[in-house]
Amino acid sequence: MDTPFPASQINVPPGFIDLGLGDPPFALLPLDLIRRAAEGRLGEGDPSFLQYGAEQGDSRFRASLADFLCEGYGVPVHAADLFVTNGVSNALDLVCTLFTRPGDTIFVEEPSYFLALRIFRDHGLRAVPVPTDEHGLVIEALEDLLAVSRPKFVYIIPTFQNPTGRTLPEERRERLIGLANTHDFLVVADEVYHFLSYTGQPPKPLAGRAGAAKVLSLGSFSKILAPGLRLGWIQAGPAELQRLVGAGVLDSGGGLNPFTSAIVGRAIESGGLRQNIASLIDVYRQRVAFMDACLRKYLPGVAYAVPAGGYFFWVRLPENMDAAALQQRAEAFKVNFRPGVRFSSQDGLRDYLRLCYVFYGPEQIEEGIARLKQTLEAV
Amino acid sequence: MDTPFPASQINVPPGFIDLGLGDPPFALLPLDLIRRAAEGRLGEGDPSFLQYGAEQGDSRFRASLADFLCEGYGVPVHAADLFVTNGVSNALDLVCTLFTRPGDTIFVEEPSYFLALRIFRDHGLRAVPVPTDEHGLVIEALEDLLAVSRPKFVYIIPTFQNPTGRTLPEERRERLIGLANTHDFLVVADEVYHFLSYTGQPPKPLAGRAGAAKVLSLGSFSKILAPGLRLGWIQAGPAELQRLVGAGVLDSGGGLNPFTSAIVGRAIESGGLRQNIASLIDVYRQRVAFMDACLRKYLPGVAYAVPAGGYFFWVRLPENMDAAALQQRAEAFKVNFRPGVRFSSQDGLRDYLRLCYVFYGPEQIEEGIARLKQTLEAV
Repeated sequence: MDTPFPASQINVPPGFIDLGLGDPPFALLPLDLIRRAAEGRLGEGDPSFLQYGAEQGDSRFRASLADFLCEGYGVPVHAADLFVTNGVSNALDLVCTLFTRPGDTIFVEEPSYFLALRIFRDHGLRAVPVPTDEHGLVIEALEDLLAVSRPKFVYIIPTFQNPTGRTLPEERRERLIGLANTHDFLVVADEVYHFLSYTGQPPKPLAGRAGAAKVLSLGSFSKILAPGLRLGWIQAGPAELQRLVGAGVLDSGGGLNPFTSAIVGRAIESGGLRQNIASLIDVYRQRVAFMDACLRKYLPGVAYAVPAGGYFFWVRLPENMDAAALQQRAEAFKVNFRPGVRFSSQDGLRDYLRLCYVFYGPEQIEEGIARLKQTLEAV
Repeated sequence: MDTPFPASQINVPPGFIDLGLGDPPFALLPLDLIRRAAEGRLGEGDPSFLQYGAEQGDSRFRASLADFLCEGYGVPVHAADLFVTNGVSNALDLVCTLFTRPGDTIFVEEPSYFLALRIFRDHGLRAVPVPTDEHGLVIEALEDLLAVSRPKFVYIIPTFQNPTGRTLPEERRERLIGLANTHDFLVVADEVYHFLSYTGQPPKPLAGRAGAAKVLSLGSFSKILAPGLRLGWIQAGPAELQRLVGAGVLDSGGGLNPFTSAIVGRAIESGGLRQNIASLIDVYRQRVAFMDACLRKYLPGVAYAVPAGGYFFWVRLPENMDAAALQQRAEAFKVNFRPGVRFSSQDGLRDYLRLCYVFYGPEQIEEGIARLKQTLEAV
């Protein structure tokens, strides 16, 4: 994978293996599926998706998406509950604009997705970390924090979390929703890895449950189809949906991304999306097992849980080693990763690192882990 | 045009003629051009635009766009000066997030685009109106306001303004830029109608001039190709560009809309965009003349200047009539328009109304104006 990636965000020096990337592999970007969907939809002779779109999103697309989610989640989802976005980053940005003001407090998992933390910072929000354990957010810790302050929202990645890969169990989900109602805060749930499950069905998403009116569930096609489409959705209750649909930016520009919605809608209708997810799971499941084998072979001193879904291994280094210092040494061995400190809101987690197993094939995964071993030995 | 517009933002009751719409006509949405561009680009076998995109936007697309702008503006434009957006509404939202904080003051033209004013309100900004005359922003009035407060930015539609259709002359452009440098504020120039000129070349855009480092020039494909694409750009100096490219929302989601950029890039490369603009100008030029003729025939008591480009007639009612009251009466005659007060930041301009001449063909323009005449007679 020494090719340059000219049009993409990915910037890996030649010869390097960056196990820190959180991007799908180029070889699994479904160009042919998208080409056929575009050909089909643009050939229907209906130009309506070229006009300013309905604020909530195209109704045919939302109907197809609702059917897809209904089947995938195993719970009823209605087109009326869905709002079309340009992906989760855009959704987070919109939620911050509409539901917060600079200086507001929000709660985030410790650790959490570091680039979400950047979006919150752009909006001047104060992110307070809530401790997590091997089952995700610790509800008692959340209760303690709620006793002293009320956040505008709690940002959480409940399923196959980034970076830890952990999944919040059913009982904690219900308690979180109960607290949201009692203490009057929103739950902004980033559900982007939900469909990438390698060992069975994860717990149901936070949205669409009884009493979940305060949940905004953020979904995206980035991990299940292609990031470059910049298409996603928010599933929410009527009051929050109303706020989103009423945003000034939508009144002016119309719904977000009607053109791409039309094409992706066709890919859902054809069954192509479902097939694509099945193919991804086949490949990624093998890569999880393979990276696990490599870690056991080359780095027996590190600790981790094998992820049941998503993109990442969350690895603890031996003897309180500092991952950021290790990263500097790793450059000489042409390997990279993401140090845990980047996912911390309190400058902690220095002995952790995040490895992604989806971007590279087996040969490069093994070579990357072998280089990591060399790096550790050199410290 | 009694058809419903199912997937679009447009919501006109059956039998009504809404001369207030600011949307392109369905018949001129270039479905065939987009279909061919998609077929071409998706058939190249390169999936790079399906990956997370480079933050500034795809470099091939920006190069094509720079060539196009260079030719159209008659001034040098470089790919390095361009940042890809999801259209002007998205660009305004991003600019507000990155360059302002709630409570900040901005200056806007009086009148200005009412939906931009809504975006500013969502960001908690205080919009101070600056008077305009038949040549747009009155520079002396701006100077008076600058003597007492400094805005974060001045929002201006310099060419074929919405709603007035007026164009800021060269000399005022230079003075505005001079003031931006002296008083240290940004100029956010919405240049969305620039290419829709029916009588010759308008003055050069505000960006790309000597000393224009503080100008953010916002462009879009909504009026020259199709709004549903949600694609646009910002032309800016290096410092402001750096801020945009460094936004957290881009670091997380990558560049905005790489998929659509790839397809539209192909439409630029093929010459299709240029041809499309030429076709639009042919049709719109005739509609300006036709609406002018209808206004003279049916409404000799109103005052207006015939627009030289863009989308709108800005019409003054006789004898200080109130356009909002007229609008209520107009319902009985199944005709609609936008009252001037909606474009005012100070609840003024009550005797003005905005009419759009691009959405409807001649028959409905004449019928609409005839209904307006009936409405006026009924008051």
